[in-house]
Amino acid sequence: MKLKVQPIRIKTGKYKVVLNLEDAKEIGVRGGDRVQLKNHSYLTAVVETGDMIEVGTVGVYQECCERLGKECPLTLEIIPTSKPSSVSYIKKIMDKEKLTQEEIFQIVQDIVRDTLTDIEMTAFITSTYIHGLSTDEIEWLTRAMIDTGEKIEFETHPIMDKHSIGGVPGNKITLLVVPIVAANGLLDEIKSITEKVGGIIAWGGATNIAPADDKLIHAEYPLSIDPHCQLLASIMAKKGAVGADSVVIDIPVGQGTKIPTIQEGKKLARELIELGERLGMNVECAMTYGASPVGRTIGPIIEVREALKVLETMEGPNSLIEKSTALAGILLEMGGVATKGRGKELAMETLRSGKALSKLREIIEAQGGNPNVTYKDLIPGEHKGEIASPADGYVIEFDNKRIVEIARLAGAPIDKGAGVWINRKKGELVRKGEPLITIYSEKEWKLDNALKSAQKDNPIIVEGMLLERIKGLGVI
Amino acid sequence: MKLKVQPIRIKTGKYKVVLNLEDAKEIGVRGGDRVQLKNHSYLTAVVETGDMIEVGTVGVYQECCERLGKECPLTLEIIPTSKPSSVSYIKKIMDKEKLTQEEIFQIVQDIVRDTLTDIEMTAFITSTYIHGLSTDEIEWLTRAMIDTGEKIEFETHPIMDKHSIGGVPGNKITLLVVPIVAANGLLDEIKSITEKVGGIIAWGGATNIAPADDKLIHAEYPLSIDPHCQLLASIMAKKGAVGADSVVIDIPVGQGTKIPTIQEGKKLARELIELGERLGMNVECAMTYGASPVGRTIGPIIEVREALKVLETMEGPNSLIEKSTALAGILLEMGGVATKGRGKELAMETLRSGKALSKLREIIEAQGGNPNVTYKDLIPGEHKGEIASPADGYVIEFDNKRIVEIARLAGAPIDKGAGVWINRKKGELVRKGEPLITIYSEKEWKLDNALKSAQKDNPIIVEGMLLERIKGLGVI
Repeated sequence: MKLKVQPIRIKTGKYKVVLNLEDAKEIGVRGGDRVQLKNHSYLTAVVETGDMIEVGTVGVYQECCERLGKECPLTLEIIPTSKPSSVSYIKKIMDKEKLTQEEIFQIVQDIVRDTLTDIEMTAFITSTYIHGLSTDEIEWLTRAMIDTGEKIEFETHPIMDKHSIGGVPGNKITLLVVPIVAANGLLDEIKSITEKVGGIIAWGGATNIAPADDKLIHAEYPLSIDPHCQLLASIMAKKGAVGADSVVIDIPVGQGTKIPTIQEGKKLARELIELGERLGMNVECAMTYGASPVGRTIGPIIEVREALKVLETMEGPNSLIEKSTALAGILLEMGGVATKGRGKELAMETLRSGKALSKLREIIEAQGGNPNVTYKDLIPGEHKGEIASPADGYVIEFDNKRIVEIARLAGAPIDKGAGVWINRKKGELVRKGEPLITIYSEKEWKLDNALKSAQKDNPIIVEGMLLERIKGLGVI
Repeated sequence: MKLKVQPIRIKTGKYKVVLNLEDAKEIGVRGGDRVQLKNHSYLTAVVETGDMIEVGTVGVYQECCERLGKECPLTLEIIPTSKPSSVSYIKKIMDKEKLTQEEIFQIVQDIVRDTLTDIEMTAFITSTYIHGLSTDEIEWLTRAMIDTGEKIEFETHPIMDKHSIGGVPGNKITLLVVPIVAANGLLDEIKSITEKVGGIIAWGGATNIAPADDKLIHAEYPLSIDPHCQLLASIMAKKGAVGADSVVIDIPVGQGTKIPTIQEGKKLARELIELGERLGMNVECAMTYGASPVGRTIGPIIEVREALKVLETMEGPNSLIEKSTALAGILLEMGGVATKGRGKELAMETLRSGKALSKLREIIEAQGGNPNVTYKDLIPGEHKGEIASPADGYVIEFDNKRIVEIARLAGAPIDKGAGVWINRKKGELVRKGEPLITIYSEKEWKLDNALKSAQKDNPIIVEGMLLERIKGLGVI
């Protein structure tokens, strides 16, 4: 059926069109069905129906318009078409049937190409969350994620890679681990490499490495679920795509992290190591204490300030120094630079000697930054407020998730200067009136929101502190 | 944050708004998050993000505009808000945890109020499909479906109800069962009842009875799944909402139906009977042969023609007469009008005597139709084509699903005159060149499509017929 085009200048992230219900019936499609849009070429789009589009007209969202040509065409032939085959493979997962490598590749490719609707993506995520995937299937999923994205081929080897599975706030160790390892020659050609790839200390999400992973994470967000098999594939796909030879994976364990118990941490470690073997990567995992933040800062500028201060002065939180040198040490051993059991010592020495600092300055320069920056240059947001302790005592409860929420309310990580300085961590002594946390913000109203939230539901509990005061109604 | 409103004149079936990515970041929300729209009152809407909406502006879809007042307001205050609690209950289902009655009610209420996104609905459907629900939960789901919709309270009792779980084409027995039962006085006040409810032979989907069910079926469509627990709740909610006392449920069993084996049919029957008991309804189930269509017609007008001809002349397919009188007989026994084992006999007598026909004419009149209609008045679409048998022999394969597809291509059920007349059913003898099926259509191009599809992939296989002719390429 030939229809007049009404462009809809909205991006939906998918190829979608809107039909009047009458036209849809005439064509024989319903909302959620697919049609081919035909002018010079074909494009498959998903149908929405609505009365707001007149009979004889098709509403065409921005993505379709852009794919169909410079200008959205004036008319389009609309032809019903079937669902992509990957929808039937997703149905197989629901029914707990095993998939072939080709079927998994097809699903991942359709995810990358935005061919699947939100509903189909959700069915995939929910069913893999519930049923999981077999070891073979996880390997194929990882390979498909690698092969449907860009790869970086380094000329130098070995490629050493540090990864944290996340879930612990303030985990700024990358800024120490990378220069420590690089200072020991494992990444000799770091300058040319950073020139080539745009940086070694880089956020994977900004690259086109394993794009299926980003799309899945995006689709999982509304349900706040993270299927285990996808967690594994996600980590290892990013490593595989950069051709990593050795990978150390930081698994923060404990209350409030993604991995609540040591047992689960060990199981995850075994799975990551096995998946690494299947993909030809040497993987070691390090379980770390994750129930408390690493260091005392949460938020872009103050985290970098804290890390840089350690590099410049060796002054700073023990949790940060210990964790960074421990993980760097493992990589140094895996790379054969330190003998077994001596990696941490070498890492500590590299830090103490200032070699790590000069390497970081080289990296910063190679990435286009000012190599002479010092921690004192890194000034947090100008608006600042404290949450004071209501009592003398030891910190007995510390809520990671609330701390992160408060940092977000203050504007982090979008506002670089926003964040939370943790004045007292679990087990530390505090006097009444002394600050427990200090909140920084670039905007006063955001600081107010963060302070109100922190006052209403304090993330830090001091022993002997009144948790809630319940008043009677008095005489009415 | 206060934003200028840009109305988007599209209905999405949900309360949705579009924010520029920058504003979304500033407010602290992402696509799929919820915000409150505040002018005089509050309305919760789901956020989409897109570059096409300018910074400082919020795109407001039609449903929101309509809820916010006669005219869409010029500005709106946008405040981030949390997900409805039912999303966390859906997460519990994913994790195979049991829900309380209140939690299930909340989910169903949010479904009816269009509060859940497609993604959340899909997560509910997928996880109930995979994990199922307990008997208690199914009862609560059914009660919630009844209580969140309209109910019909009949003054007369008993209320007798016939239901088919579907999956067999041409199942037109309602047109015989209802007048047979009604003719025996069980629905004495049929005239006043039809005046009150708009009809006794009515399509439930057009009422506001158990609207959650329709919304779920709608959401299940893109995945072509039908979670078992929802099938049960769906059937019994519609019965509960009309206060049915006795219900007979037709369970077509066999290849190509929803219930492939007798064992599964029996299990379903037990579940329906138990759920009926819990809800205070007397339920009997009848397993029927579903691998072949009921009668010889598929399509609105030709099905009614076939049913009416039986009522007028007792001439017509045995499958239709037998099945209709069997089911009507069960209801007659359940209602105490026929003694045990004599229901079918009474039903057959009611049909043969013409009492059922006059009762149908009364019903038709009560529903505003012409009571003097005869089957000869019911003329199918003017465009007609046949698929001829390519060989002499017996019909050995008969594909229900293909027959339905062909009827749809011809325009059914939207075009009332479209449909398929089945000239030969399974086991019947046919001579080469005689018709296997006759396709009726209101439009020539639809007939062409249907004929092409039937020729390409014949739904009926005659013994000895050449299935495919594979030619060599010859000399190139």
